[in-house]
Amino acid sequence: MELTRRKMLGAVAAGSCLVSSCMREEVKTAALTTGADAAWPYHELDPERTANLAYGYYPEGQCMYAVFRSIVGQLADQYGEPYRSFPYRMMAYGTNGVMGYGSLCGALNGAAAAISLFEARKEQRASLTGQVFLWYEQTELPVYAPATPKVDMLMPVTVAGSVLCHLSVGNWTKVSVYPAKGKERTERCSRLAADVARQTVLVLNAHLSGADALAIFSDKQVSQCNACHGPNGQRKDVAATMSCGSCHSSLPDTHPEISSKAPKVL
Amino acid sequence: MELTRRKMLGAVAAGSCLVSSCMREEVKTAALTTGADAAWPYHELDPERTANLAYGYYPEGQCMYAVFRSIVGQLADQYGEPYRSFPYRMMAYGTNGVMGYGSLCGALNGAAAAISLFEARKEQRASLTGQVFLWYEQTELPVYAPATPKVDMLMPVTVAGSVLCHLSVGNWTKVSVYPAKGKERTERCSRLAADVARQTVLVLNAHLSGADALAIFSDKQVSQCNACHGPNGQRKDVAATMSCGSCHSSLPDTHPEISSKAPKVL
Repeated sequence: MELTRRKMLGAVAAGSCLVSSCMREEVKTAALTTGADAAWPYHELDPERTANLAYGYYPEGQCMYAVFRSIVGQLADQYGEPYRSFPYRMMAYGTNGVMGYGSLCGALNGAAAAISLFEARKEQRASLTGQVFLWYEQTELPVYAPATPKVDMLMPVTVAGSVLCHLSVGNWTKVSVYPAKGKERTERCSRLAADVARQTVLVLNAHLSGADALAIFSDKQVSQCNACHGPNGQRKDVAATMSCGSCHSSLPDTHPEISSKAPKVL
Repeated sequence: MELTRRKMLGAVAAGSCLVSSCMREEVKTAALTTGADAAWPYHELDPERTANLAYGYYPEGQCMYAVFRSIVGQLADQYGEPYRSFPYRMMAYGTNGVMGYGSLCGALNGAAAAISLFEARKEQRASLTGQVFLWYEQTELPVYAPATPKVDMLMPVTVAGSVLCHLSVGNWTKVSVYPAKGKERTERCSRLAADVARQTVLVLNAHLSGADALAIFSDKQVSQCNACHGPNGQRKDVAATMSCGSCHSSLPDTHPEISSKAPKVL
């Protein structure tokens, strides 16, 4: 982190003095620099406590809000500013893949936002985000078991195979036979938000302590596709690392054969 | 809006007093309520100025950052807090569909976040977000023409047909034959961010003035698919309003015939 908490707190306190009686020009500059453009300090959090909080926050603003607030809100509770004045409610927009659109899973949107709040360096941020996104694509979820469930049910678990909300939910509805809108799906996504919040904290804690990245395997199929379509391939027509096969489930007849090392299993 | 700017500014200034010498318990409560959970006041912005700002901000943090900062940052410049202390840099995470994942277009992620910051009521927020997302899916973009282009080129325009980054970019690379990573694609996305920022401000201005929603047509195909798969259909296995046909470009042989009013053109 580029700033100590002391500096950050001072800067933000000073920033608000702009609209109170204690305005000073020198702190105005500090507030503009630190408040808007610097990473905020991350402090180690307890993964299980974070998961419990995310599960609890879900009804207030759903998936994105629950993940982001369970992480950043804990720091607000423990350290006050700048965390306290973040407009948390805004993050409710991620619900159901952004206001019902079914695009990016809101829990992941919240995780990526939190990671970015704490890590300004682009490569590190991409690595940390990948450790949550890849894990999400590949892991049977939800596994979080609330002490006091809002819906008491035997929870089916599924592999999302995608970072997209409607695919993640769709795989779950196929297996569970519950509808995509209903109290059981809401319970599933509440627990999923808890899982994503826990994973995000595990990743952030490891990063804070200087530990190696969590052992998560990259998607071989994505590598195969990007060998031709990616920025270093011959075609260079795709810039993406999200799972290919969850949508591109078959190759068109016109698609050239791919090498024996990359079998035609898309 | 539920709060006047005066109340908001007072509350946030008070919030920061928690870590300075001017702490008062009664304002602590106000800060917690307004800073974290209320909508922030929106003030009418000039759409063209916003587009210019977004184009200018793009190199600092790419698409999501450019859209969000061009809108909320103008209010920071004009009104100070609470807008000033927002950690804008965080929004850089939306780049290239979230840190290179190619999922949700970052310009749209930033637009949805800004709308949500200013509108707390869920139905209204969904309507405003839809007026940006549907327009994006259906419109030939980019149309923004910078006075001083960072890359001077004849810009090909394409219809994204999707809110997903790698589809939006992919359609453009097909037509333009430029690679998905390169200065021309960066220029395209800089201009696209300007277009999305402009559209978001048009939608927010209309909402502020109490005007009717902008005339944007809903996606008929989505309605057809949701007639069976949506929450009110027989199957209830999908909760999404993003364009179906951009990925589900053909129906499997096992798919039942759909009605004559909903021709098999998926």
